Amino acid sequence: MTPKTNHVPHLTTALTGPLQALEKHLLGRQVDIETWFRQRWQKVQPPFYGSVDLRNAGFKLAPVDTNLFPAGFNNLNPDMMSLYVQAAQATIAEICPEVTRLLIIPESHTRNIHYFESVAMLQEILVGVGLEIRIGFIGESITEPQEHKLPSGRHVRLEPLIREGDRVGVENFFPCCIVLNNDLSSGTPDILQNLSQRIMPSMQLGWTQRLKSEHFRYYEDVALEFSKTIDLDSWLLTPWFDQCPEVDFMKQEGQDCLVRRAEGLFKRIQKKYDEYNIDQSPFLVVKADQGTYGMAVLMIKDPKELLTLNRKQRTRMSTIKGGASVTRAIIQEGVYSFETFGKENAVAEPVVYMIGRHVIGGFYRVHENRGPDENLNAPGMNFHPLAFAEPCHLPCANPEKQANRFYAYGVVARLALLAAAKEFEAFGSTGQ
Amino acid sequence: MTPKTNHVPHLTTALTGPLQALEKHLLGRQVDIETWFRQRWQKVQPPFYGSVDLRNAGFKLAPVDTNLFPAGFNNLNPDMMSLYVQAAQATIAEICPEVTRLLIIPESHTRNIHYFESVAMLQEILVGVGLEIRIGFIGESITEPQEHKLPSGRHVRLEPLIREGDRVGVENFFPCCIVLNNDLSSGTPDILQNLSQRIMPSMQLGWTQRLKSEHFRYYEDVALEFSKTIDLDSWLLTPWFDQCPEVDFMKQEGQDCLVRRAEGLFKRIQKKYDEYNIDQSPFLVVKADQGTYGMAVLMIKDPKELLTLNRKQRTRMSTIKGGASVTRAIIQEGVYSFETFGKENAVAEPVVYMIGRHVIGGFYRVHENRGPDENLNAPGMNFHPLAFAEPCHLPCANPEKQANRFYAYGVVARLALLAAAKEFEAFGSTGQ
Repeated sequence: MTPKTNHVPHLTTALTGPLQALEKHLLGRQVDIETWFRQRWQKVQPPFYGSVDLRNAGFKLAPVDTNLFPAGFNNLNPDMMSLYVQAAQATIAEICPEVTRLLIIPESHTRNIHYFESVAMLQEILVGVGLEIRIGFIGESITEPQEHKLPSGRHVRLEPLIREGDRVGVENFFPCCIVLNNDLSSGTPDILQNLSQRIMPSMQLGWTQRLKSEHFRYYEDVALEFSKTIDLDSWLLTPWFDQCPEVDFMKQEGQDCLVRRAEGLFKRIQKKYDEYNIDQSPFLVVKADQGTYGMAVLMIKDPKELLTLNRKQRTRMSTIKGGASVTRAIIQEGVYSFETFGKENAVAEPVVYMIGRHVIGGFYRVHENRGPDENLNAPGMNFHPLAFAEPCHLPCANPEKQANRFYAYGVVARLALLAAAKEFEAFGSTGQ
Repeated sequence: MTPKTNHVPHLTTALTGPLQALEKHLLGRQVDIETWFRQRWQKVQPPFYGSVDLRNAGFKLAPVDTNLFPAGFNNLNPDMMSLYVQAAQATIAEICPEVTRLLIIPESHTRNIHYFESVAMLQEILVGVGLEIRIGFIGESITEPQEHKLPSGRHVRLEPLIREGDRVGVENFFPCCIVLNNDLSSGTPDILQNLSQRIMPSMQLGWTQRLKSEHFRYYEDVALEFSKTIDLDSWLLTPWFDQCPEVDFMKQEGQDCLVRRAEGLFKRIQKKYDEYNIDQSPFLVVKADQGTYGMAVLMIKDPKELLTLNRKQRTRMSTIKGGASVTRAIIQEGVYSFETFGKENAVAEPVVYMIGRHVIGGFYRVHENRGPDENLNAPGMNFHPLAFAEPCHLPCANPEKQANRFYAYGVVARLALLAAAKEFEAFGSTGQ
């Protein structure tokens, strides 16, 4: 309605082509969309935080991974700090207005300096809310407090997590609320069993108990309901999938299931590609149904490839983070990433961050040596983070403006977080 | 706790001296302060929006005016648009999650182009939330829709406000919720009587029904309770006041009351100045107890000045915005403004903006031709807005950093808005 002056401090968008029909459709239905989300968040409590990996094929925009224990906060645009703090303030006021202090429990299985930059940034956001924050590290590698100076200039102080009765904490600090930034992919450690404290998000959202296929089943439902509201084919926002509950890549068991289901998916997707006159060939992504961090991921263009995996591929598909072994697989529709960055046209994958119901921003994961149908979240991947200038909830009046692309990202990320909230509701409690 | 990298995109602060003891005290008690506010906002609903004029004397920081129908949105830093939208989103989700469209009712008694820039900015924020927004103008000067292009490049479309049954709206647009940006200082117009729609903030907060002295009475209580929590003398945050309920400056009636009460106030304040070793002389500000816009304001350094007002001064004190006449006066402790800006050391007065519970930013009102004890919000004043770079809720770890000043501003502004919320609660309903 009101034309904008320049709100965008440092507009950096990977895609420079014209906005696609899908993005325009979402922008045109903004009032319906925002009303729909407001109504949904009335009914279901959003998770405490999350990050959503997206793939933008232009004709289609879909989440490929929803992380409820997000790392990468350090890649967000630091100029928007006040926005992150406000989102955290509003979320904490909703979930636990009485808290004065919080304990962050980070990942134990990493020494990655970038990860600790992320934890430090998360701590900074929560300190900005006006909370006392300390970090309790699980594991024997830390037996006394360690202070680390990080390359950004931030400091992070890791203290050994200790247990007293039905509470965990660090020395003289046993708050009633804990922010979990550890996805528990190797199971719930003993020290965290049967706590009386409130854990945000709930440990039930850890990968020990969560399946990607469950998440995407909820996502399909959410996207379908949403798409009806705004007269859209829900496939345009949904990566189709199927799953095999019993596989063993090393022993080459469960291959029949994988091949059969992959064939079925390829057929359904090809039909959609035909309907929308898409020239590319469909591809699928086979992943461990549990776990994340881009481990145990395989791209295929033909179901037959599943019959001829070499030893290296099979080994890679057999183990996920924390050393757990893969017994269930999800076969997911691959979504091309046609966003590129820089002179080399490096492929870029947007990652969108939320705190509670609030989209706070994101960044592009850019990798120069990968093609548009490859997984950018590969182990050891040296991605180039490219912070969004815009926090994804703010479309511009000028429909051609690049920042509008971020609006579509924010919509799809919120659908994914809504799916996670519903997934959690099914566990029988609220999911912060 | 965590040292910050540079979050402050364009730090602009008027005060360049070291942080004062008061500001340091507030920063040091941030956890207590934020917890206290979270608890208070649990019990009382914040007004929909507000702006608070502050005066910073260094040793003392106090609100001097709380506007619940704020103008001046156009003076906020446009780079932080996403913060304003997020605050509005969170506030609307709390108050009226079901709305899809809103009508803004602006001031009728101004043709000031800056005012319409503010209305356009407010509309832009609400459009960003995903609402359909139209503007209904009260008064005969607009009989058909008028589209204005504003100097900023924004457009504003004013439509005549019409009534249908117990609802007001513009052509084919009668939403269930209205954002009032008209302080009703000349009374509630007939067209707004007995509406079934929800008005935000309530018309009961209009100056027809509100008294500055009532507001500051609530403010005193709020500041006292707050100060106890953080071990502070509440005078350091409170402008003392007294009032005279029957005055007529033209007829020179009620002077005895004014002089007597002014004398009492001067004595009490001088005692505090002595206690804190303040060299300056106290001064008082006499204002109409109703009304705003810096009209009918008089500064005095001696109670006797009230006996020798000249005709010009008496005329100025007799009429407020909308032409209503002054019958009640508030005598308020003057707070020196020791913030200056630029080479000329122009005096600067901070104005802080809030949407719901969220401090979103503010600006300095800078006037080069006025002294530290003069009212900067004078009629026809040509102030220079200097947008805060920071949104006032985010202290830095470095205690000497200038941006920390904004934190103290945000604290006092929230106290003032909390006072307004309690003032409104006393009317018997919630104040959005």
